[in-house]
Amino acid sequence: MNYINGGVCAAKGFRAAGIHCGLRKNKTKKDVALIVSDCDCSTAAVYTTNLVKGAPIDVTKRNIANGVARAVICNSGNANTCNANGIEVAEAMCALVEKHVGIPACDVVVASTGVIGQPLDISPMAAHMDELVAALGCTAEHSTNANEAIMTTDVVHKEVAVEFEIAGKRCAMGGIAKGSGMIHPNMATMLVFITTDAAISPELLQKAIRADVADTFNMVSVDGDTSTNDTLAVLANGMAENPTITEEGKDYDDFCAALRAVTSGLCRAIAADGEGATKLLIASVSGAADSDNARRIAKSIITSSLTKAAMFGADANWGRVLCAIGYSGAQVDVHKVDVDFVSAAGEVAVCRGGAGVEFSEEKAKEILVEKEITIRVALGDGDGIATAYGCDLTYDYVKINGDYRT
Amino acid sequence: MNYINGGVCAAKGFRAAGIHCGLRKNKTKKDVALIVSDCDCSTAAVYTTNLVKGAPIDVTKRNIANGVARAVICNSGNANTCNANGIEVAEAMCALVEKHVGIPACDVVVASTGVIGQPLDISPMAAHMDELVAALGCTAEHSTNANEAIMTTDVVHKEVAVEFEIAGKRCAMGGIAKGSGMIHPNMATMLVFITTDAAISPELLQKAIRADVADTFNMVSVDGDTSTNDTLAVLANGMAENPTITEEGKDYDDFCAALRAVTSGLCRAIAADGEGATKLLIASVSGAADSDNARRIAKSIITSSLTKAAMFGADANWGRVLCAIGYSGAQVDVHKVDVDFVSAAGEVAVCRGGAGVEFSEEKAKEILVEKEITIRVALGDGDGIATAYGCDLTYDYVKINGDYRT
Repeated sequence: MNYINGGVCAAKGFRAAGIHCGLRKNKTKKDVALIVSDCDCSTAAVYTTNLVKGAPIDVTKRNIANGVARAVICNSGNANTCNANGIEVAEAMCALVEKHVGIPACDVVVASTGVIGQPLDISPMAAHMDELVAALGCTAEHSTNANEAIMTTDVVHKEVAVEFEIAGKRCAMGGIAKGSGMIHPNMATMLVFITTDAAISPELLQKAIRADVADTFNMVSVDGDTSTNDTLAVLANGMAENPTITEEGKDYDDFCAALRAVTSGLCRAIAADGEGATKLLIASVSGAADSDNARRIAKSIITSSLTKAAMFGADANWGRVLCAIGYSGAQVDVHKVDVDFVSAAGEVAVCRGGAGVEFSEEKAKEILVEKEITIRVALGDGDGIATAYGCDLTYDYVKINGDYRT
Repeated sequence: MNYINGGVCAAKGFRAAGIHCGLRKNKTKKDVALIVSDCDCSTAAVYTTNLVKGAPIDVTKRNIANGVARAVICNSGNANTCNANGIEVAEAMCALVEKHVGIPACDVVVASTGVIGQPLDISPMAAHMDELVAALGCTAEHSTNANEAIMTTDVVHKEVAVEFEIAGKRCAMGGIAKGSGMIHPNMATMLVFITTDAAISPELLQKAIRADVADTFNMVSVDGDTSTNDTLAVLANGMAENPTITEEGKDYDDFCAALRAVTSGLCRAIAADGEGATKLLIASVSGAADSDNARRIAKSIITSSLTKAAMFGADANWGRVLCAIGYSGAQVDVHKVDVDFVSAAGEVAVCRGGAGVEFSEEKAKEILVEKEITIRVALGDGDGIATAYGCDLTYDYVKINGDYRT
């Protein structure tokens, strides 16, 4: 398996586009994206568990209930959520794809991101559909355009792609993601679209992504707020011509490994680009009683406001890590906890057996001023491991969210 | 029932003191507090549910297992938690009270607050015990001195007292609290000491505070981090000479009403003084399916980083309130949710039946720039009500916690 360029255009038979249609006031910010496949795709998705759900999620669920889709349309600037006519507007977005691309509306994945609670005016999209379709293309640049169009407060692109083999056939898979604030996914994350030319049945595809998100997107947190619009959709068009994966086995495992490479790369990118973040935090937990306990502990650390603020200040305040482990709800023997801080500048042991050990504050500072910090926790309770992805809590997070809407 | 002055010295037979002994470098900051009763007290306490617990909690639990205590000693500057000899040091603090006041060490409630994971040097306390005992007194000023000595990043005193009658006898009850960061109590909050001269059995006292905290301290959140050292202890010395409360009934209800007046006042004070806070947020939920659902929803709103940041910016971004209701884990019909923002400047309806309504942004801004904001949520699902107390998320929270330790 190799990492390659191309995002959602890396796999055969997918084209993408992103343009500014006028949903956003800033004319330099693209605000609508389209991804289309040359043929029908096995399609699976997972969504937010928030009871307040975006209208596009209801429409997407219905459209892919048969496991098939061929296009994705997504706007930024308005979440099309908690308003009077959200379903109607989401359906109209699918109808625009049918009218201008010829793909049936019932084969379209639709998503929206932005402010909650305001009516979404579809007319700017309708007026620019010809332009959007004309912009479709299959290069890396086209994927990046689509990625830009789904970004809100994101400041960097989030694209990952890999090539891999299934039964001797070269396959590719790539994804784009957006997500910077309101990021604490539960079953999926804010808008991730992955395409692949591998052939796989809808059932196995759904199984693969359900298993994957438990260790990837569900382990990311920026601010503890689970969005209303989280959607991860994977479209597999089969153009790599591998024998269709319809059961577990080596081919399925190869597919899952490629999926993990794409999803874990996107998770790191989302966490590192958390609103206002200056650094990526990774909580790496080993020796937990089991995987579930490991995940709880890793996510509790990455979610702790106090730990996040300490990392912003490059302060080796490991007591806050212990505190977050203690309230995580996980089974843990707190007298066996070891903690290290690790970065490109080296590593420092700060806690052994649940108690502090002497360390050089100077060395710790050197380690913690880096852009990527791993908080390594060893528990001695069993074989459970987990990794969670987060970011520091900064002045800019407060600034961005103190006046997001006005 | 009337509010009165005096804090922990409001009730008969209690004296208090707070001095600087040298645990903190800043000589103007008091760092050790002592509260003593003239006679034995029925004593009950609730503690953090964090698995990582401060050593003083273990010692206090053992000391009040028989339901009796006569003194409280508490230091700030060091939490005496996650270090090698915490139990030993907490016991030594109790022994200092025995040596200098004559109250048996096994009748002392001991608590510590401050940095986690560093050894607590007891010698400054030992060297200043005579001074601490000499400073004891029964005026409001003495209570305030004790309050100051337990404060860390707190910027205001937190004292509440009431006088009330039980069976025709005038009783008093008062408390002091500290708590500003790492505030998301679960069973109690960071250091609250309440004294009363009402006579009540230890069993009924424990019952009363367990019932009370579910609606008071457990409904406060500053940053979602549950401390390792949360302790709420109530000492009742019986000097009001009411017939001792040993069963439920009118006297018990009168006692609980006084307790609620003290605890809810302290909760508001803790939330308003959250680290870096510029305003008190109150989530007032009615019409939930039951109390438990109401509590979940109220606490979810008050805990949402995005809602907190929006309130800091006086931005009526009610979609974030809906979002927090949706991921709260409570049973709720999201199509029946009404939301209003309320303050001294008036009120504004922003959401009806789960969808946005038109409102004046200007009026909303006027309401949200006030120092105390109520987010009023009506659900139409049943009779459950709850109130939660929190604060806004500000630049100063990040600043305080980016370099708390160094």
